[in-house]
Amino acid sequence: MEKEPLLMLPGPVPMPERVRYAMMRQAINHRGAEFGQVYADCARVLKTCFGTTNELFVISGSGTAAMEAAISNFGRDKEIACLVNGKFGERLFKIAGRYGKATEIGSSWGTPLDLAALEERLKGGAEVVTLVHNETSAGILNPAEAVGKLARKYDALFFMDGITSIGGDTVESDAWGVDVAFVGSQKCLAAPAGLSAISVSNRAWERYTKNPPYYLDLAAYRKSAGSTPMETPYTPAVPLFLALREACMIIDEEGLNNRVLRHKRLSQAVRAAAEAWGLTLFPKVDNLHRYSNTVTAITIPESVKDSDLRGTVKKMGIEMAGGQDHLKGNIFRIGNMGSVGAPEILATLAATEHALRKQGFTVKGNGLQAACEVLG
Amino acid sequence: MEKEPLLMLPGPVPMPERVRYAMMRQAINHRGAEFGQVYADCARVLKTCFGTTNELFVISGSGTAAMEAAISNFGRDKEIACLVNGKFGERLFKIAGRYGKATEIGSSWGTPLDLAALEERLKGGAEVVTLVHNETSAGILNPAEAVGKLARKYDALFFMDGITSIGGDTVESDAWGVDVAFVGSQKCLAAPAGLSAISVSNRAWERYTKNPPYYLDLAAYRKSAGSTPMETPYTPAVPLFLALREACMIIDEEGLNNRVLRHKRLSQAVRAAAEAWGLTLFPKVDNLHRYSNTVTAITIPESVKDSDLRGTVKKMGIEMAGGQDHLKGNIFRIGNMGSVGAPEILATLAATEHALRKQGFTVKGNGLQAACEVLG
Repeated sequence: MEKEPLLMLPGPVPMPERVRYAMMRQAINHRGAEFGQVYADCARVLKTCFGTTNELFVISGSGTAAMEAAISNFGRDKEIACLVNGKFGERLFKIAGRYGKATEIGSSWGTPLDLAALEERLKGGAEVVTLVHNETSAGILNPAEAVGKLARKYDALFFMDGITSIGGDTVESDAWGVDVAFVGSQKCLAAPAGLSAISVSNRAWERYTKNPPYYLDLAAYRKSAGSTPMETPYTPAVPLFLALREACMIIDEEGLNNRVLRHKRLSQAVRAAAEAWGLTLFPKVDNLHRYSNTVTAITIPESVKDSDLRGTVKKMGIEMAGGQDHLKGNIFRIGNMGSVGAPEILATLAATEHALRKQGFTVKGNGLQAACEVLG
Repeated sequence: MEKEPLLMLPGPVPMPERVRYAMMRQAINHRGAEFGQVYADCARVLKTCFGTTNELFVISGSGTAAMEAAISNFGRDKEIACLVNGKFGERLFKIAGRYGKATEIGSSWGTPLDLAALEERLKGGAEVVTLVHNETSAGILNPAEAVGKLARKYDALFFMDGITSIGGDTVESDAWGVDVAFVGSQKCLAAPAGLSAISVSNRAWERYTKNPPYYLDLAAYRKSAGSTPMETPYTPAVPLFLALREACMIIDEEGLNNRVLRHKRLSQAVRAAAEAWGLTLFPKVDNLHRYSNTVTAITIPESVKDSDLRGTVKKMGIEMAGGQDHLKGNIFRIGNMGSVGAPEILATLAATEHALRKQGFTVKGNGLQAACEVLG
């Protein structure tokens, strides 16, 4: 088999060997003590990544399942104010509309959210606020702390999608007043795709609404997690739990602070290269909104074609992401989530510079040198 | 690490090395051609196991997710007649109650279903019938073909839980008039836990009901499966798909007929041993209801304690299942799903006989010899 391409996407991401090899094991009984310990280990480390002491459950389903678990368990029939400045904010709004009275507080993708409009909605009776902390579709980091303050001021629940920030960026769910937060396994945690984890505050439990989907009923997860050994209500994806545990052990060994600093440094290096080349970073940031520390969205110059740019890079064994929906062809995105380090970033930047030149784009300055200055 | 125990459970089951090792791979892009081919390979082989030419989708979620997908996509607000003679029939009834007007047509666990009562419900307007084909909680194989005929006669949809029969027993979804069938990955397919697959007839699509859970909306699965490359709507559990594909290749190589015959022979051997020892098989069978070919439920004799019986066997590295809910302590169950063969069956039977003797139970005849006569 040919070597797999290097995935520099905003997920899935390359997994450390230890994580992959943890899945080789023979089946174990998911109602036994060993599995219970695996689940408990995951929950312990993930709580540190979430910045929470709340209860935390692992769902055998992707981040979208966790989104729906949040909305359907704690948002049904409620007024839900959805902050949207990218694709995943839109998805949360769509799911919110299936269960509650959802209002979109929209900004153009990758531009600052309208917190004044949010405050109006809260005054008007919104009971839940949804936010995508790190909006990968546009490469923007949204102001979770400020949103949390507003939600608390008006006694609303705050659901935060931390799918692509938790484990790679600073997240302080409890300090920020987040009631329900969730993460996906195949992003900054560098585990395989297929699991998500969700934390739930006591405030949220007090407002638990009956009749979520059976498979996503967090009351059942709570009951099973409270048993000895710790369990899931339905058969879990055991190999993925084994891999996630190994990924959590790696986070423990690196130290969460070091891990967050590494993500910040790597994304800073990508931004430094892009700016040195004379490219424009896609998001519009301000004193509250920042560039994402886990994925960089870059505007494709007029003279350059997306398919040629990424195609040339792919020929060198590296997959970058394009834009989604209306941004297709307008931006490309370089992820730096999970276990990637300077070598992967440098290879990606070198290939990108080559592709830009090949397309006739004249780079202004030395992007690789700028990146190395950040990394070195 | 000590060797994992031999799991002789009605799932999860031991996985062939090839299946486990397929998960070691580096992450691949789930929107790429390679993943699309993996999904297509799984769908092709699974359709033969289902006995269907209907569309088939793989869900990143356990069998319970597939149960809910069936009910929520095609049963919402409908009158649902649920045939129940075991734990999983009860679960389907419980889920049906969340979405439709559900009626339980109940028999004691492990006893024949009341098809006359079903016909009354169908005359009374039931629009959907649910059946667990192979009820592992009681070791009984239910008459799917007869139920399918009744459902068709009254133009009702027929949902069949084939979680523990498909891939190990004769299943002819199309010939039996099954509209929606589903299977779990960690049972007769001998793949890891965490995936399920579901087939959908055109009749079911014509009666698709809006607003299933977002994560389980099969219209979205249909759309993504129809794209090139074949995709899932949300991030799939990629390593589990890779393992399932390998498990499907093994089914192809063995041949489905051979595989079904092997399951039948192995369960027959377990029954022969139990009867030779003088034990009683738990289910009450008749000309329509049969003993399960994938798990054998045996009544524990009065003088024997469940925990001592299974505990002694477990000390020899073999895990058998106990009874669930009100059958806890009354029965024990030996699974023969997936890739197990004569060696695993013989070891389990030898350990069981030893445990019975140790408990002071006098075996009537030579169970191992009876089993060997079936297997040899």
